[in-house]
Amino acid sequence: MDNKIFSDIFARAREQHPLVHHITNYVTVNDCANITICAGGAPVMADAREEAGDMAGFAGALVLNIGTLNPGIIESMILAGKAANERKIPIILDPVGAGATRLRTESTRRLLDELKISIIKGNAGEIGVLAGAEAKVRGVDSAGISGDPVTITRTFARETGITVVMSGATDIISDGRQVLLVDNGHPMMGGISGTGCMASSVTGVVAAVENDRVMAVATALAAFGIAGERAAPASRGPGSFKPALLDAMAALGPQDLAEGARVRSA
Amino acid sequence: MDNKIFSDIFARAREQHPLVHHITNYVTVNDCANITICAGGAPVMADAREEAGDMAGFAGALVLNIGTLNPGIIESMILAGKAANERKIPIILDPVGAGATRLRTESTRRLLDELKISIIKGNAGEIGVLAGAEAKVRGVDSAGISGDPVTITRTFARETGITVVMSGATDIISDGRQVLLVDNGHPMMGGISGTGCMASSVTGVVAAVENDRVMAVATALAAFGIAGERAAPASRGPGSFKPALLDAMAALGPQDLAEGARVRSA
Amino acid sequence: MDNKIFSDIFARAREQHPLVHHITNYVTVNDCANITICAGGAPVMADAREEAGDMAGFAGALVLNIGTLNPGIIESMILAGKAANERKIPIILDPVGAGATRLRTESTRRLLDELKISIIKGNAGEIGVLAGAEAKVRGVDSAGISGDPVTITRTFARETGITVVMSGATDIISDGRQVLLVDNGHPMMGGISGTGCMASSVTGVVAAVENDRVMAVATALAAFGIAGERAAPASRGPGSFKPALLDAMAALGPQDLAEGARVRSA
Repeated sequence: MDNKIFSDIFARAREQHPLVHHITNYVTVNDCANITICAGGAPVMADAREEAGDMAGFAGALVLNIGTLNPGIIESMILAGKAANERKIPIILDPVGAGATRLRTESTRRLLDELKISIIKGNAGEIGVLAGAEAKVRGVDSAGISGDPVTITRTFARETGITVVMSGATDIISDGRQVLLVDNGHPMMGGISGTGCMASSVTGVVAAVENDRVMAVATALAAFGIAGERAAPASRGPGSFKPALLDAMAALGPQDLAEGARVRSA
Repeated sequence: MDNKIFSDIFARAREQHPLVHHITNYVTVNDCANITICAGGAPVMADAREEAGDMAGFAGALVLNIGTLNPGIIESMILAGKAANERKIPIILDPVGAGATRLRTESTRRLLDELKISIIKGNAGEIGVLAGAEAKVRGVDSAGISGDPVTITRTFARETGITVVMSGATDIISDGRQVLLVDNGHPMMGGISGTGCMASSVTGVVAAVENDRVMAVATALAAFGIAGERAAPASRGPGSFKPALLDAMAALGPQDLAEGARVRSA
Repeated sequence: MDNKIFSDIFARAREQHPLVHHITNYVTVNDCANITICAGGAPVMADAREEAGDMAGFAGALVLNIGTLNPGIIESMILAGKAANERKIPIILDPVGAGATRLRTESTRRLLDELKISIIKGNAGEIGVLAGAEAKVRGVDSAGISGDPVTITRTFARETGITVVMSGATDIISDGRQVLLVDNGHPMMGGISGTGCMASSVTGVVAAVENDRVMAVATALAAFGIAGERAAPASRGPGSFKPALLDAMAALGPQDLAEGARVRSA
């Protein structure tokens, strides 16, 4: 593909510096805040039901991540999500561990039912379970999926009207018609906690400034993947990889996307 | 000013190794714990109402940070704050996002009403809103203030009897009479999540050993700012800046304050 | 001792890649997740009572850490613990701050009463208080213990049937009969927040694959200590020490334990 579209979208994200409201887990929340800044956005994390809606009122995008969910947090997600829907700002849902426990699967289905989600991004197991495919989730990791991942992703997107992202070595993105594959990234990204959550935050930054959901996600995942590719040789293991990843993300400019994005149609 | 006073105060903080009780947000809590250690203190984080008062009973200072507040946490802050007031240990309040949502503004006012706060530290928007100036807060970032920041800070301090700190490129500190300005710091400190919260923790460490609130804050912010100045050239971006900041804070001695503190009267 | 036993156990942990379910504090939770990965395991953190039992159903070990406890979290720990007991997977309890507040001491006793805990690991003050010795805890740090630490550890283990670990410069491990001492580690490990919690996570990874509790703990603490020894010269202070510690843990192989473990009988 012509990478100009990705570099233009990314330039706009850096320029507009959108506020991204997160209701997310307490394991990787600091990583999400920092990658949001490094990607050009401004993070805010607020999960009290008394203010979840107010905070969404300022934001350019809302990221919902169920990594350490409980019923109260799901209520706050519904309130923030309704405010986001009214204001027509995009909602990115990261259904961490959906399929592993009933609470996670049912809470995800409730969010999908009660809110107009723009983008859902999960690993093969999570997306597979939600799409009704034969798939397994072990803790918060995918434990395999049967069937063709591209078909599952596209069908799930077509049936729901949501832009679906199945993350992996190659990320699959579809809105039900178009399917894009992003080959950027590095195996070290799987060796630390939080890269999946961080990818959702970067997606929030970009989706706040670009209405074409598929292009927004492709831009975000290509950018984050390129940052990972650059961080890997600058690090000595998973511990030093994380600061290097943030450094690389902060240094990334539109030109890097023009040169480094590896996005193709399926 | 003669920097000897700051280096002496800082030497005392390292010597006395005060316990600093935090009720704080889950985004930057790990940074707060580590900077407290690096500044010479011992952190403890405990927010259950069943023990908030007990834990404050051990501490040399109490830091209250509303970054991810909810009504239950505010109750715990009141309980811990009352215990701190009884024991006459200083309370440092960081009203993160006050002005952005009603929950944050009203919770801050309640803490100011029900507790005897020693030091309140916020960005221009937060302090401006609380002081009744024309000011705006967007998420947790200042979005501007009208009027003279020094006058707003001093007047708010005079009216409340609290030592007020408006943080920024130059930090403004006033108890209503005296006004000190701290020029230490580095722009990279604004490029990561958590430096504001960390500054409040360092202030807690120093305020635990020094009764002159203005001098305590000036010492803390000068020390933290010098650490930032030293960390910047040792880092390759915001990701590596944070570990470098902790390294620099841990290495800082009284002599560094004697040589590097840039504090002046307004 | 012949270090072959430790290197064999550690090799098995890396091979089996066990899932370790944590109900832990929000201060060091990210460190716990990352060290679990670096030690060869897969972390999952889930504390909602609605899924605590389900998640334990997948896991090879359960780590309970009361660092930021509240009564609701203790209920979730009981539920997850009962599921773990039914499935006969080991439970590692880290009674952070037991002895400092009534909530912490009583919650720990309740967990010890209602669950079959396999391993309890705390500092001298925490273990001392729980064992009924004269001991003090200040915040979450040990403030001293009277009496012989080895005797206290062994007696507490004998009376409870639990493998007890008193951590320190030399870690003491006993099941009531045998006593092992682990000399690995580095003073820099005490200069950051979270090493105690991380040691419990590594213990969870190893205990998931080795039924001899004393050998499992010795393997985990020797491995983590060697990682600390290697990280120290690679770091410039406490900030850079943490990423270096994760790097060293991830790079550690069975051969490193064969060569570097310093474990002896008391």
